[in-house]
Amino acid sequence: MTKLDFYFDFISPFAFFAARAIEPLAQRCSVELVYRPVLFAGMLKHFGQLGPAEIPPKREYTFKFCSRYAAEQGLRLVGPKAHPFNPLTALRMSGVAGAQQAEVVQAIFDAIWLQGIDGSDGEALVGALERRGLPGSALHEAAQTSEAKNALRAQTEAAIARGTFGVPTFVAEVGGVEELFWGVDSLGHLERFCKGDDPLDREAIEGILSRPERHRKS
Amino acid sequence: MTKLDFYFDFISPFAFFAARAIEPLAQRCSVELVYRPVLFAGMLKHFGQLGPAEIPPKREYTFKFCSRYAAEQGLRLVGPKAHPFNPLTALRMSGVAGAQQAEVVQAIFDAIWLQGIDGSDGEALVGALERRGLPGSALHEAAQTSEAKNALRAQTEAAIARGTFGVPTFVAEVGGVEELFWGVDSLGHLERFCKGDDPLDREAIEGILSRPERHRKS
Repeated sequence: MTKLDFYFDFISPFAFFAARAIEPLAQRCSVELVYRPVLFAGMLKHFGQLGPAEIPPKREYTFKFCSRYAAEQGLRLVGPKAHPFNPLTALRMSGVAGAQQAEVVQAIFDAIWLQGIDGSDGEALVGALERRGLPGSALHEAAQTSEAKNALRAQTEAAIARGTFGVPTFVAEVGGVEELFWGVDSLGHLERFCKGDDPLDREAIEGILSRPERHRKS
Repeated sequence: MTKLDFYFDFISPFAFFAARAIEPLAQRCSVELVYRPVLFAGMLKHFGQLGPAEIPPKREYTFKFCSRYAAEQGLRLVGPKAHPFNPLTALRMSGVAGAQQAEVVQAIFDAIWLQGIDGSDGEALVGALERRGLPGSALHEAAQTSEAKNALRAQTEAAIARGTFGVPTFVAEVGGVEELFWGVDSLGHLERFCKGDDPLDREAIEGILSRPERHRKS
């Protein structure tokens, strides 16, 4: 069985774009798609890295890139009421959504990035879900449990242990070979991998990765 | 006059790809292209950021992405003898190349990323340039002067002051409007901007950028 894990955080507009693309990609490749909410801030903290929104010119450029990327897809990126925002409630709600997880994830992403709700506002999230016929109140309640909190923490830690350093990340397992892809610019590579047509030159990459590193002194 | 500044560091495989694409793009758009070597490590230090090669799983993924990207363009990425490496001599040599700068930049990028020389080895750089009929020895000598050193430092500082946070970066000025683009995934957006067809929704982006930021506590 071919499996595809999709690691995302609602805070990332790139993850928003990835969420729209990943379901059709999984269908084209006949892979089983698993949605895995993770806390991007936890990854940044683990690696001692800054997020794009923490470097002022990178913040501005990232939003401009995403606005252009959206326009090219016929979308108008509205963006959340504040950014960065605390995504914990939204992530936990998506983590407890069970069989409706795909629809819940899409509804939350759309509410934040296309409709402009405050992604940290539980009531606004409930409203957005219920307008789509999804059980917003029940999910919001379930998201307050220690099980939901522990699940998000554990999934973030497991993602880091697996080599995930950002969102969106896709980990595909095809014929026993596991491969990690990061970012919307990796979607083409991911699809080729899932179809058994990975253009990676394994010999070349092993040569590169086995050579010495000479890091700058800090 | 429409102008396009190309900020690069030989240490970046993404800048290598950009260097191959930027000359044809500039011709298609009838813009004047200016090569601007900068020290990527200086940008990272300024913003307190880690480079991709300093986060182990990101290092591995970046090289895999670049190997796939190269394969899609019919290239075989060999990569330098060590990475990261000290790019100062190579950058300074490209900074003093005058009228032959475009050819010198391409020759150094090819030597490091396609032929696999040590990018910090002055003699290897001289050899690579002279094999292409370029004045390697003279450039290597000129690169040792304090003028060459000061020029690289000043250009890196000027780039940072202009909002450059990584490489490759392109700053285009069209009809009095200046816009910054970062990364090989921005080449399509850059070309549209240079042709007066920028898909950016200016109203939407101003809305997003003017909203509050709520950063995580460290």
